[in-house]
Amino acid sequence: MTRIRLDLRYDGTGYLGWQKQPKAPMTIQNALEEALFSLIGIKPSTVGSGRTDAGAHARQQVVHFDFDGPTNKYPWVNAINSKLPQQIQLFEAYEAPLEFHSLLSAEKKEYVYFIHNAELPPVFRRDFCWWQRRPLDVAWLNTASKFFVGEHDFKSFQNTGTLVPSTIRTVFLANWTQISPQTLKFRIIGNGFLKQMVRNIVGTLVELSFQKREPIEILKVLQAQDRGAAGQTAPAQGLFLNRVSYPQKLDNKCRKL
Amino acid sequence: MTRIRLDLRYDGTGYLGWQKQPKAPMTIQNALEEALFSLIGIKPSTVGSGRTDAGAHARQQVVHFDFDGPTNKYPWVNAINSKLPQQIQLFEAYEAPLEFHSLLSAEKKEYVYFIHNAELPPVFRRDFCWWQRRPLDVAWLNTASKFFVGEHDFKSFQNTGTLVPSTIRTVFLANWTQISPQTLKFRIIGNGFLKQMVRNIVGTLVELSFQKREPIEILKVLQAQDRGAAGQTAPAQGLFLNRVSYPQKLDNKCRKL
Repeated sequence: MTRIRLDLRYDGTGYLGWQKQPKAPMTIQNALEEALFSLIGIKPSTVGSGRTDAGAHARQQVVHFDFDGPTNKYPWVNAINSKLPQQIQLFEAYEAPLEFHSLLSAEKKEYVYFIHNAELPPVFRRDFCWWQRRPLDVAWLNTASKFFVGEHDFKSFQNTGTLVPSTIRTVFLANWTQISPQTLKFRIIGNGFLKQMVRNIVGTLVELSFQKREPIEILKVLQAQDRGAAGQTAPAQGLFLNRVSYPQKLDNKCRKL
Repeated sequence: MTRIRLDLRYDGTGYLGWQKQPKAPMTIQNALEEALFSLIGIKPSTVGSGRTDAGAHARQQVVHFDFDGPTNKYPWVNAINSKLPQQIQLFEAYEAPLEFHSLLSAEKKEYVYFIHNAELPPVFRRDFCWWQRRPLDVAWLNTASKFFVGEHDFKSFQNTGTLVPSTIRTVFLANWTQISPQTLKFRIIGNGFLKQMVRNIVGTLVELSFQKREPIEILKVLQAQDRGAAGQTAPAQGLFLNRVSYPQKLDNKCRKL
């Protein structure tokens, strides 16, 4: 048995997110498993590094599955891509050690979120950003975002109704950059993220900044440990799972196919 | 009677180009005239600065039409945008002098063309670039593009079967920039362009560069004055009409609505 690791990117527009759903075939995982099935003749159980929401995108999603056949039979990347829709693309395939687990071995995850901040809505990137007409204050957003860095209970930023053993996560970096006159980019790196946590963080930051609140008030929202204390959920289409990192030792044991 | 000037941008994906066609309603001009009709109650005859091909885009297309009503009745930009599909956006409206003509007064036009130059096809910008797998040589492309600058007969780069009084045009600038590790941008400014001229120039440059020909051979193609001497037509989806310029004096007489 061989563990295969696949690194992929996707345009999630029109898809119902990463996670396989029996009654909703339009998910990324369903499309990937269909493509694998038409290549290797069995439908493997793939495991992703985490879910992405309906309409959200990935510049690196990492997936693993176990496979019994010979690994040198296919040029994996090209063979799988030829079976995938153009919205989903495999850019690397590895033979991974059996201890590699796309979700459990992940050490860090990076998300980016794009805001189109202009008088008029975006025409060319409609599916890849959130439109905010009122001018945003990047300095304010950066000051407020610093309060997320460190180990915190992010319960206030988790969707209600979700049950997880712990809502404590560590954020290593959270910052905003003006990448063009009309585009802001939010970048956040953590050891893991709760359901809709990034979208809730972005939505809350935008809301508090428009209310001209003090940046430190984001700390009160964190400390409340209550979803009701935070703001709106920013829409999914601005969100990209940007990078998933594994311990160097484990990465070194992944051999390109 | 008032002459109205409209500046618009559009994502031409799924549209059959700028030009109105009686039997093909999916053109930009049809959509614009429908929007104007639902606002002002009559369908005006709009004149664009030039055609754009099916699937090509515009970051600035300039249009004029004549109007008999009062110009202060509507907040033009917002009113027209509210009637337009999200692929088409008005970003400026002017009351223009009667001597202003979007096509005949145009002094310069700028087009840009994007190539995704990478092993794998584009996932997020599928509709906005041309995919070239083989590495392109930007220095070669720039050297060859210099031969287009100046006044030339561009007959070799005009689609066959087109009848225009003259195929002589002046190109002021033609250059290539690597704007990201995977993206090349071609920029060309001229006093006017023949049908598919930019796409034929891009296609020919790419073809000759892959054939490792000398850059000066582009001059032979120009001098042949024969479409058969040039190369393939690059696909429309990489092309943007980027800017249309008018004499400063005329621009100054356009009053924002």
